[in-house]
Amino acid sequence: MKTQEFLQTVSRAQFQDLLRTFSGVGTETVPFHRARGRVLATDLSAPEDLPPGRRSAMDGYALRAADTFGAGESSPAYLDCRHTLEVDAFPDFSLAAGQCAWIPTGGFLPEGADSVVMVEYTQDIGAGSIEIRQSVAPGENVMERGEDAAVGQPILAAGARLRTQEVGLLAALGLTEVTVRRRPRVAILSTGDELAPVTASPGPGRIRDVNSHTVACLVEEAGGDPLPCGIVGDDPQRLVRALRGALAESDAVFLSGGSSKGTRDHTLAALEQIPGAEILVHGVRISPGKPTILARTGDKAVIGLPGQVGSAQVVMAILGQPFLRHLAGDRQAFDERLWPWRRARLARNLESRPGREDFVRVRLAPAADGPPLAQPVLGKSGLLRTLLQSDGLLVIPAEVEGFRAGEEVDVWIL
Amino acid sequence: MKTQEFLQTVSRAQFQDLLRTFSGVGTETVPFHRARGRVLATDLSAPEDLPPGRRSAMDGYALRAADTFGAGESSPAYLDCRHTLEVDAFPDFSLAAGQCAWIPTGGFLPEGADSVVMVEYTQDIGAGSIEIRQSVAPGENVMERGEDAAVGQPILAAGARLRTQEVGLLAALGLTEVTVRRRPRVAILSTGDELAPVTASPGPGRIRDVNSHTVACLVEEAGGDPLPCGIVGDDPQRLVRALRGALAESDAVFLSGGSSKGTRDHTLAALEQIPGAEILVHGVRISPGKPTILARTGDKAVIGLPGQVGSAQVVMAILGQPFLRHLAGDRQAFDERLWPWRRARLARNLESRPGREDFVRVRLAPAADGPPLAQPVLGKSGLLRTLLQSDGLLVIPAEVEGFRAGEEVDVWIL
Repeated sequence: MKTQEFLQTVSRAQFQDLLRTFSGVGTETVPFHRARGRVLATDLSAPEDLPPGRRSAMDGYALRAADTFGAGESSPAYLDCRHTLEVDAFPDFSLAAGQCAWIPTGGFLPEGADSVVMVEYTQDIGAGSIEIRQSVAPGENVMERGEDAAVGQPILAAGARLRTQEVGLLAALGLTEVTVRRRPRVAILSTGDELAPVTASPGPGRIRDVNSHTVACLVEEAGGDPLPCGIVGDDPQRLVRALRGALAESDAVFLSGGSSKGTRDHTLAALEQIPGAEILVHGVRISPGKPTILARTGDKAVIGLPGQVGSAQVVMAILGQPFLRHLAGDRQAFDERLWPWRRARLARNLESRPGREDFVRVRLAPAADGPPLAQPVLGKSGLLRTLLQSDGLLVIPAEVEGFRAGEEVDVWIL
Repeated sequence: MKTQEFLQTVSRAQFQDLLRTFSGVGTETVPFHRARGRVLATDLSAPEDLPPGRRSAMDGYALRAADTFGAGESSPAYLDCRHTLEVDAFPDFSLAAGQCAWIPTGGFLPEGADSVVMVEYTQDIGAGSIEIRQSVAPGENVMERGEDAAVGQPILAAGARLRTQEVGLLAALGLTEVTVRRRPRVAILSTGDELAPVTASPGPGRIRDVNSHTVACLVEEAGGDPLPCGIVGDDPQRLVRALRGALAESDAVFLSGGSSKGTRDHTLAALEQIPGAEILVHGVRISPGKPTILARTGDKAVIGLPGQVGSAQVVMAILGQPFLRHLAGDRQAFDERLWPWRRARLARNLESRPGREDFVRVRLAPAADGPPLAQPVLGKSGLLRTLLQSDGLLVIPAEVEGFRAGEEVDVWIL
């Protein structure tokens, strides 16, 4: 058993590769204005051209570019202005050579016009004549029909996470409903005889269950729906029943162990009793987070988080949250380049044991000049203090033995 | 009027100073597990010690440090083990000199013990005798009573934004309810005769209203509650009525102009008709965002956003969202060091007009080596394309004339 345990210790990359083998959740249709942060389930193409016609990008005069060739401050062109366009009017006339029309920003260009001269380069000299002191090229200051999206062409691909700007695109195209992946439902269990509910006054020898709540926050933050399943003591049969119940109602189970090794053994024993369950990982070469467990039952994952509150939060950020984004169909779920990084200068030497990836909590302090100073926050991972005082994590790769004071580093903001 | 307009053009810092003069919103009490992302309204102190007693940070043996002095691999100490502690038991015995007790991680130390030796440095040699191969200092591997929070001492200050780790602290201390600032209610109005609702098929010369929806998304993202107030055409009396209605129901009004200068003039005229309204700013020296308006009526702000969809989103990120965080009582609302920044290398020379701050949309492309390449995304700000293709903004300060290709820059991720 010990041997097997060592064999099943994996790197973070290997753990992520295993997480990738789980299928994503199903889909649902939501109003476009509720779609921010959700992941698109289907490829979308434009139902119409956007803009729907040629629109002016400036306040000025719509005209034929050819009529301005050679025009400048010392050699203006003079054009005949017979029309003033309103921003909401679709022009029902055609512009001939030598003519121009006043056009507001956003106004649709009349037929015959191919460009706009900004009002700043013009003067109304009366009697319907406009002085033009700049030459423009065809298409200048014009938003072309279909420049944002052309009818029938792809606009957004399945797996894209919808930001505000994508919601804006849906609005502009009148796509009032959109099919997205539903939020993964995540059952959350805390194990450990020492745990008491937050609402209780824990008796001697007991402490309140923090992990159920911090894990729920992190599930929500990653776009999942937490299903709190309470505290289970270190009784194998109760744990098996609780796990079965949790699996039946969720897409994944996050179970946080008590803080002792004994609790972890109970968890492994309980998982082995779930029919068809397979323990994929007995530990990860990261610190904190070494005792993390991964099991599969059917197509559902059970992730056993460390019991130490600080370690559980770090493992959620490193592995749990990217996994939920993967379940929700996000193509970039594991792309750590998209994490919020801040450049900082390390305040002191920091050593790291080779062979494991270290995630060191750091606090950022403004520096007189240049990037902030990253101060490592050290302390026992059973305390909340270290995370409370931290702004982010400094990642020390497995093959690196540490960083020197003064070195520029990238800090992952939590 | 023109003169006044030029006088009332301000820098971003000046605009922010004006925004700071508005008072924050009131408070409400919420369950602690709904408090993530909210801003604490009162200072909090610890109702009890956390941890509630001295707890072990490791699986091992609780003992007196003095009994291990001089112990090592070649000169072990031998202690008498009469007790095995369970993780949920509060020890009812006292440890004498020469004695030790098995203790799991998280277990409470018995009286008399002052430190823990990790199990890795020990061996049970039978007959109740434990070999200890490491010397420890008093307090080693122990979480002291009150180390996270000491009864009566301050733990969190009013104005702190509650992250997952702060929710964990509330849970650990049994603080099941917490008083936070309520979410600012933000009325959102779109103006412009050319605008049609998203659900309509806009006729010739008209386009769908995008800003109402993108502004609502950005209000939500910044912790506000959007109150959509629809589209108002360029009719001064209707706009005055709509503004009054919006002000009555909200803490602030965000109004996005149509795309033309005419619409902006209508907005200014309408604001001047609201009794007691004062126009504080007629423009900001930022690009995009120059035509942004700020007015005050009583203690409520009206922010007039540019009509161009891209410009409106950028101004929301630069000024609107920090303002909402300020209204919600966040002490660090305007601290741009807390924005998500990514270091990048500029792909091409970028010039900037001195005297205004430029926010250039950029897309990040992975580089073979080192930070990603920042590619400026240029294009007309009336189009959605530029923001859709961007990952973030490159900030060019007013006094800087630009950056060179290859320079390292900080990109603000949107």
